[in-house]
Amino acid sequence: MNASVYATFLVAARDQPGLVARLAGFFYTAGLNIVDASNHTDIYVEGGASFYMRMVVDVSGLSTPAASVALGGSSSRGALERAFADLATTLSATWSVRYSDMVQRVAILCTKDPACLYDIVLRQRSGELPCEIPLVISNHPTLESVAESFRIPFFCLPVAPNSKREQETQVLELCRRHHVDLVVLARYMQVLTEDFLKEAPPVINIHHGFLPAFQGAKPYHQAHARGVKMIGATAHYATKDLDQGPIIEQDVARVTHAMGPEEMARVGRDVERVVLSRAVRAHLERRVIVEGRRTIVL
Amino acid sequence: MNASVYATFLVAARDQPGLVARLAGFFYTAGLNIVDASNHTDIYVEGGASFYMRMVVDVSGLSTPAASVALGGSSSRGALERAFADLATTLSATWSVRYSDMVQRVAILCTKDPACLYDIVLRQRSGELPCEIPLVISNHPTLESVAESFRIPFFCLPVAPNSKREQETQVLELCRRHHVDLVVLARYMQVLTEDFLKEAPPVINIHHGFLPAFQGAKPYHQAHARGVKMIGATAHYATKDLDQGPIIEQDVARVTHAMGPEEMARVGRDVERVVLSRAVRAHLERRVIVEGRRTIVL
Amino acid sequence: MNASVYATFLVAARDQPGLVARLAGFFYTAGLNIVDASNHTDIYVEGGASFYMRMVVDVSGLSTPAASVALGGSSSRGALERAFADLATTLSATWSVRYSDMVQRVAILCTKDPACLYDIVLRQRSGELPCEIPLVISNHPTLESVAESFRIPFFCLPVAPNSKREQETQVLELCRRHHVDLVVLARYMQVLTEDFLKEAPPVINIHHGFLPAFQGAKPYHQAHARGVKMIGATAHYATKDLDQGPIIEQDVARVTHAMGPEEMARVGRDVERVVLSRAVRAHLERRVIVEGRRTIVL
Amino acid sequence: MNASVYATFLVAARDQPGLVARLAGFFYTAGLNIVDASNHTDIYVEGGASFYMRMVVDVSGLSTPAASVALGGSSSRGALERAFADLATTLSATWSVRYSDMVQRVAILCTKDPACLYDIVLRQRSGELPCEIPLVISNHPTLESVAESFRIPFFCLPVAPNSKREQETQVLELCRRHHVDLVVLARYMQVLTEDFLKEAPPVINIHHGFLPAFQGAKPYHQAHARGVKMIGATAHYATKDLDQGPIIEQDVARVTHAMGPEEMARVGRDVERVVLSRAVRAHLERRVIVEGRRTIVL
Repeated sequence: MNASVYATFLVAARDQPGLVARLAGFFYTAGLNIVDASNHTDIYVEGGASFYMRMVVDVSGLSTPAASVALGGSSSRGALERAFADLATTLSATWSVRYSDMVQRVAILCTKDPACLYDIVLRQRSGELPCEIPLVISNHPTLESVAESFRIPFFCLPVAPNSKREQETQVLELCRRHHVDLVVLARYMQVLTEDFLKEAPPVINIHHGFLPAFQGAKPYHQAHARGVKMIGATAHYATKDLDQGPIIEQDVARVTHAMGPEEMARVGRDVERVVLSRAVRAHLERRVIVEGRRTIVL
Repeated sequence: MNASVYATFLVAARDQPGLVARLAGFFYTAGLNIVDASNHTDIYVEGGASFYMRMVVDVSGLSTPAASVALGGSSSRGALERAFADLATTLSATWSVRYSDMVQRVAILCTKDPACLYDIVLRQRSGELPCEIPLVISNHPTLESVAESFRIPFFCLPVAPNSKREQETQVLELCRRHHVDLVVLARYMQVLTEDFLKEAPPVINIHHGFLPAFQGAKPYHQAHARGVKMIGATAHYATKDLDQGPIIEQDVARVTHAMGPEEMARVGRDVERVVLSRAVRAHLERRVIVEGRRTIVL
Repeated sequence: MNASVYATFLVAARDQPGLVARLAGFFYTAGLNIVDASNHTDIYVEGGASFYMRMVVDVSGLSTPAASVALGGSSSRGALERAFADLATTLSATWSVRYSDMVQRVAILCTKDPACLYDIVLRQRSGELPCEIPLVISNHPTLESVAESFRIPFFCLPVAPNSKREQETQVLELCRRHHVDLVVLARYMQVLTEDFLKEAPPVINIHHGFLPAFQGAKPYHQAHARGVKMIGATAHYATKDLDQGPIIEQDVARVTHAMGPEEMARVGRDVERVVLSRAVRAHLERRVIVEGRRTIVL
Repeated sequence: MNASVYATFLVAARDQPGLVARLAGFFYTAGLNIVDASNHTDIYVEGGASFYMRMVVDVSGLSTPAASVALGGSSSRGALERAFADLATTLSATWSVRYSDMVQRVAILCTKDPACLYDIVLRQRSGELPCEIPLVISNHPTLESVAESFRIPFFCLPVAPNSKREQETQVLELCRRHHVDLVVLARYMQVLTEDFLKEAPPVINIHHGFLPAFQGAKPYHQAHARGVKMIGATAHYATKDLDQGPIIEQDVARVTHAMGPEEMARVGRDVERVVLSRAVRAHLERRVIVEGRRTIVL
């Protein structure tokens, strides 16, 4: 294990004294250096104040004798996780860990709009999004050449009126076969069923409106008709209730009376792309904890 | 009449060829200089494309022989308006005019929050809002000392459960007696009745939410519960449907998971004040035309 | 000539009475409909107030008898331009015209960074930028495959220490041969000589700093060292003085102490792309008039 | 000591393993609850990575036996500070502490512009700025009535060409007599000498330009002449080099070619006030650490 491998721990627990000290102390005792840490105590959670913490730990220290002693004779990742699990049990905390040498795999679902697809792939290629993109899935053949120009396998799975369940099964199968960790809906013009979402990895969607305003179809037309002076975009986790999932990121742009719905859509596209990429990046960097209908982005 | 008096004409008409030429030509022929002009053609209006124009005209030229000739022998404002009315009839246009030496009079309605009241008065005093503020009306006595520190008459008209109609009548009477041209609701915590709005001058309200999201009470609490990442404020003309009136101006500010409703309210207050003052200024400068549920801000 | 051809006139003149009326009247008399118009009077120009106007005219009316009469017997574009030139001479105005059926041709100059190149090409393909891109020129071979994936001819013209003049001559020759109307520097890492700029079509550059702060090399490193809380990008016409040309568009993004120069660069790239595309679009739509070191964007 | 008293610790140290654990552990051992914590490791500091941490500690726990034992038999604030100082010495850390029941005292220095003065006082009155304002000092009598309307003592100390040193001595004397912790320059139109700044408490200034662009006098006129498309404001600690001090907060607003310097100033005033108040609030909440020319805002 070389020096550049990091483990990112996300922890959530009922607030209680000494949480920072005990969580940070765990790694200190094991001789593992915390290179980045942030935490938040939320007093507005129903049922009592809650505590959230993100720690990025340099796991190269696992190979030292100190770690071995602290972790009970072994210095494997498994031993680290078992020891941390014990602490978490004591604190009644939920937690997860991910290692930087296990690159996450993202499936992009799209329909006909190339902008979002290009944007995510180019950000991944430039190193901005720490992930692999093993496949692109679409319900239309339009974007095949885009995927091909980046040598990403492209699967066209059309949806007929009564083949939705079947198509979703194929999407799930592809995700499983390619070990997909995250699904990104890059202007995928299909509503996903509750059944699909139960089985699938986390799904991030971009809605081209400032939620909770302008839910549903044609949000730019809704915004124009209502005469708003700003339009927005919202990236959120997909849930069974359309456009109701926990919001990860939002942003807006100014519009005027002089813009029709198409002009608003043009301005909005720039917002959509930036918002979606920020949300995907936050998820990949393990910064997002879902708490009910809200997210904590550490 | 000295050189610094301007007339601002607002015109709306069904789109037709030659509108700019004929409207601008009217003043050119009369020897009156247009010092500022802007127009907009909106193709999204139900019933056909509509044209809107704002012209600021230096009326000092009215005293020249050319004007007198062009206006049929008289060079009064009345003659100018009659001649323009003839043109407007030809074009089936609606229009209005206001002169810069007839300063508009604004009544501020407030309850207990001093921030918006101070903000509007200070902007008026600094010359940023071209108006007079002949009175402040409140349903609570709290802000009397603020009004007094600026030597503005303060009227306290409390609202009891079954005295709303009566209180509104008193507000209307005060507006009439003080020749009020515009009512600004500076965090006035009362819903105005349809009857009141029919009788009153135009009313501008500030809603501390990004409409159409978060209508009604406690928008910051709604925003917090939904977990949005930006909050906003909306200035709009009050109509009988609460928070549904034509939007004049909006803006937003970024918030995070770490902010509770009170912190969001603190951030939001800065947005509210700026948005309200921009809307009032646009109205006072005669830039706003209402078109259905939308506004054209020229 | 069919109904969908438009001529965009840009006019600049010393301010004088009746300009809007006379300019709009010219087209009205000729039976040509103005579909969009905006103007600005600038009182801060050295030497006296200046007037600027942009008019978009539907030239399908040229085929009517009225136009022929008004333009002296001919209804060609040449006749229209000669008649307008006569009016402009009377007003001592400078002016230009461009027709929507003569699509402008843009050469992109780049080096190794694919982001800006992709961004401009994708916006052109989506219809957002009304132009053709007949060629891409680079001083490095890196981006050849990108150009090829869009089937755009790619020319690699490396710059050796003492071949700069020669290389620029080749760039100019390519621009001439491809009838280029506009050169866009999409992170082209070469300073252009005064000689080149004299001969070349207009050149728009994107500077990854908020000018006039952080001129010259490595602006994000400069911004980080100074500890600013926002970073920006500036699109401007290239002139002989580096980073001193007239600014067309700027925007910023918030940064924090937690971001190093690379993180700032990542955030900044999103700003750069949006700013450059807005500037190129404004130029292509004939909205930009240069006035000394400033631009008027109508 | 009741439950609502908090101590805010700010710590800076060379980066080293175990810092979070040891700092948080210190309070955990003493039975003191950390209610808010944030930290940052900066790898760009000359001389090696640096670590910064802010901890807000509920000091009501000081009255428990556990604290007394952990702190060596005493449970006073003095004992807490001595024990923390020992730890800090071990870590070669610099640190400071402030208690929420010792309200900071802010002197406002102004000249003739009422906007910034009103803004800060109103924010203090509304509870947004946790401080007292024991006095206002001005080199002009203009704003005396504003201070009086809030019952804040006002001192007019004019500056004559050769009385600057003397006047500054009087300002310092007033600050000492009123136990001032922070000086806020609310559009105070005087440059402070190096001697003054050496003796004075921290001084926060608002510059009405986006530093480092537009340093010195009349920044809005500079911005207009350069034709920028956005203007900004910068709040920074005053240092001997004019407009060169560490930046605490910045923001911007969009402007257009249609705005003259006065209009830019009007738009800019809204930015100035918000930026200054954010900076003062961050300082009062003990969030700001100065590191060379930069600030860390935790």
